[in-house]
Parts: sequence; structure tokens; C-alpha cells
Amino acid sequence: MTAKVVNACVLIIGNEILSGRTQDTNLRDIANTVGSWGIRVAEARVIPDIESMIVPAVREAKAKYDYVFTTGGIGPTHDDITAACIAKAFGVSLVENEAIASLIRSRSQDAPREVLDSRLRMAMTPEGAGLVENPGGPPGFFVDNVYVLAGIPSVMRNMLSSLEGKLETGDRVFSASVKAYVTESSIAAGLGQLQSERPDVDIGSYPFRDEGGYGTRLVVRGTDQSVLDDLCNRIRALTRSSGGEASRE
Amino acid sequence: MTAKVVNACVLIIGNEILSGRTQDTNLRDIANTVGSWGIRVAEARVIPDIESMIVPAVREAKAKYDYVFTTGGIGPTHDDITAACIAKAFGVSLVENEAIASLIRSRSQDAPREVLDSRLRMAMTPEGAGLVENPGGPPGFFVDNVYVLAGIPSVMRNMLSSLEGKLETGDRVFSASVKAYVTESSIAAGLGQLQSERPDVDIGSYPFRDEGGYGTRLVVRGTDQSVLDDLCNRIRALTRSSGGEASRE
Repeated sequence: MTAKVVNACVLIIGNEILSGRTQDTNLRDIANTVGSWGIRVAEARVIPDIESMIVPAVREAKAKYDYVFTTGGIGPTHDDITAACIAKAFGVSLVENEAIASLIRSRSQDAPREVLDSRLRMAMTPEGAGLVENPGGPPGFFVDNVYVLAGIPSVMRNMLSSLEGKLETGDRVFSASVKAYVTESSIAAGLGQLQSERPDVDIGSYPFRDEGGYGTRLVVRGTDQSVLDDLCNRIRALTRSSGGEASRE
Repeated sequence: MTAKVVNACVLIIGNEILSGRTQDTNLRDIANTVGSWGIRVAEARVIPDIESMIVPAVREAKAKYDYVFTTGGIGPTHDDITAACIAKAFGVSLVENEAIASLIRSRSQDAPREVLDSRLRMAMTPEGAGLVENPGGPPGFFVDNVYVLAGIPSVMRNMLSSLEGKLETGDRVFSASVKAYVTESSIAAGLGQLQSERPDVDIGSYPFRDEGGYGTRLVVRGTDQSVLDDLCNRIRALTRSSGGEASRE
């Protein structure tokens, strides 16, 4: 039985991530959230606030993956160029979205003209865009399969949550792991054998060190929970035959 | 005066990052470290342990950027395919590196044959590769402008540190920031004006909320510290003229 795969690309847009100033956490959050719905993040790119980088990255990603999620660059300042780049990537105009503009106007009644104008930049979306709800402020938007979310983690999470149940999903990938107090190399041959027997499961091996000593965490990922259980048992047996302790996590 | 720019691409190789299981921290570490030497990270990609994804990503990145730093996939197990992919990207053979093989043999005298064989996988490097020192274990390697580092953060840092002073560097980018208790939109027009006056400086605007209320952090980045100081003063004046407090951080 072949699993139904729906995959996605995440585009993290922002100089502050590439400069090392800010630790990105959005990729992990998106991967976990959409993963729980049955969408697999297959690639991510971190790109600067530069049109000539964003436009081709969006074009490539939207053609290659079922979904694209972007984060960052949708605020009211000069460095917020994501909406304009998405419009360009789709070859459509950037237009004022009536719903967003009304929302901003209703919340800006005491604001000076210049401030209102800046806020209204957040209403400029590609022609034909749909909205991504955001309880706390201006919505994000989507065009075709590209979903444009905020960069601020709490706002990004709110926007992403609002998409639950609205996207096409595939078979969910489950994972299970075994904590084995052996070095990677002592079980490498056996693991390679297990992996070649089960190409439908992804077996990852990650060394660690904790109070119990050196060890290797084996993570199995696949769409069939019973297959994962069986593999975990076989990995525990493999570890014991190499003289190490192993427990399911 | 035009700044001398040396740029880099970071390739994070690993299913565990894309699945959301592991929070990557290597990108930020690499950006900060090489940034302090005068190398700018201009793009990053997170890709799975799949040859058909790694090889084209390496080819594109090595052609486009001065340096490429990869992390992950250089251990002894079946999922460690980075070295083979780098060889393929350069069109060279994967061969046993004598120096690494000797080191592994000298540390594996009591190991069973099968374990030694697995460890020796870590000696397989692209023909002509140079070594990246690693005080705690088998070295990383480089081919031309592509530097192949471990995925484990502490090991990655050791390998990267060993490159200090060995790479070509450009003008260092400095940063300075102003913490302003105003909304982004109230200073957006003024900031846009400052940015257009100084295209050589990157002005970023990042909203925050703390015990003092809502605010915006303005980060200026450029190669001339005196220009950054001047911009910070002008941003503070802009904030005060919008009725907010602002302080240099």
C-alpha cells in the first residue's frame, strides 16, 4: 500500500535569521503542526528580504511542492516586501484588500494620516488572494498553494492554526524512538540491514551523551504504527546483541 | 567606498530538522561565527538525507556563493550520505582518506571487524578533499569552497573554529540597535526615508512586547560603525518626534 504524500516547502524570509541575530523557531513549529495534519515539510529555505531572492524561491517552491508556507516580511515597514514579491512570483498586481483595509481603518481612527498609510501597507495583497485569519491583527493571505504568514512566532502560530482542516492532507507520518547505550558504529551494519528491508520507513541515528554515558537515539518514521513498533523491537534486540541497554522512548 | 563582500550559503542536511523533531541551532551559530570573521551568510537551505536533493543543492550553492558550509550526515550509519553526495556534486570518486582511516584504526584496536568497518565509513571522502580539524574525533573535510561539518552542534562548533584565519574574508558587518517604545507603523514612513538615504545600510524593524509595553526594535547593519551610530541617533530622534521613548541597546 503506497502512502498518500502531501508535501510542503517552508520559506523563512528575514535578514535577522541569516545574520545570526535571531534564532528561528518557525520551521520547527510549522513542521510539527502541519505534520500532525498529514503534510510533510520536505525542504526549507532561509532567504533575505531581497526581491531577487524571494521571487525565484517562491516560483520554484510553488511548482515543486503541494504547499508553500512563508514566514516574515508582512509588516508595515520598508523591509516588509513579501506581499509584493508573492504578487510578482504569480504575475499579478498588488492591490488593496478591502477586508483588511476596513479592519485597519476601524482600528486606526485616532491615528495620524501618515501612520494610517503605513498600516494600510499591510492591506496590500496580490490580486485574488484569500485571507488567513489572525485573531490579534491583520490577516495573512494565500495565493493558490502559497500561504503567507507572519514572522513573529506567536502570530505565525495563530495564523497557521486557523488553517487546520482547510488544507489537503496525506497519510500522517508517525515516529517512535529507541534510546540505545551503544555507539553508532557498533550497530551501524545491523541498522543498514533493517533500513534496506523497510525502505518505506525512515530510520535515523543520532548520537547523544547524557548522565548514562554515550549512546545513540534511533528514530523510525513511517505511516504504519505497527511497522514502527516491530522495528523498535528489532532495534532493541540489535542493541542488546551488541552488549548495550536499549529502551523505547 | 564599496564594501568587500564574501558570502556563504549554509546547507543544513537532516530529516530530523525537517520533521520538527530537532530544533536547528547550527545556522545561527555559523552565521554569528563566520560573520565575526567577515563572511556573510546570504542564504540557507534545510534539506533531507536524500541524494537527489543534496547533490543539486550543493552544485547550485558552490557556484553561487564564495563558501558553502554543510552540517549533518557525516557519521557511520546508513543515513550518513553527505560525503558521497559531495563527491557526486564535484564529479569525483569517494575514496578512503589515509589520515582519517589511520586515526580511526588507532582508536578502534579492540573493536570487532564489523564495528571498525562502520567507523571507516567516516574516512570515505571525495578524492582530493582537505581536512577540517576536529579535536574530539574524525575530522570534517572540504572540497574547493564547500566545507563539510558535523551536525552535532558541539562538534560542528569545534570544526568551524578550526577554520578561523584560513578562509578569505571581506569587510565585517557590524550592527547596532535601538529599542523604541512606538508601534512600527508610527515610524514606518521616517524609517523608509532613512533607508532610502542609506542603501548601504540594512535597517530592520522588529516589533516586540515586554514589561514596558509594545515597541519596535530597529536594527541597523553595515560595515561603517560611525554611519550606524549616526543612524541610531536619527532613529531615536524619529521615535521621540512620534511621542515614544527610545534607547540605544
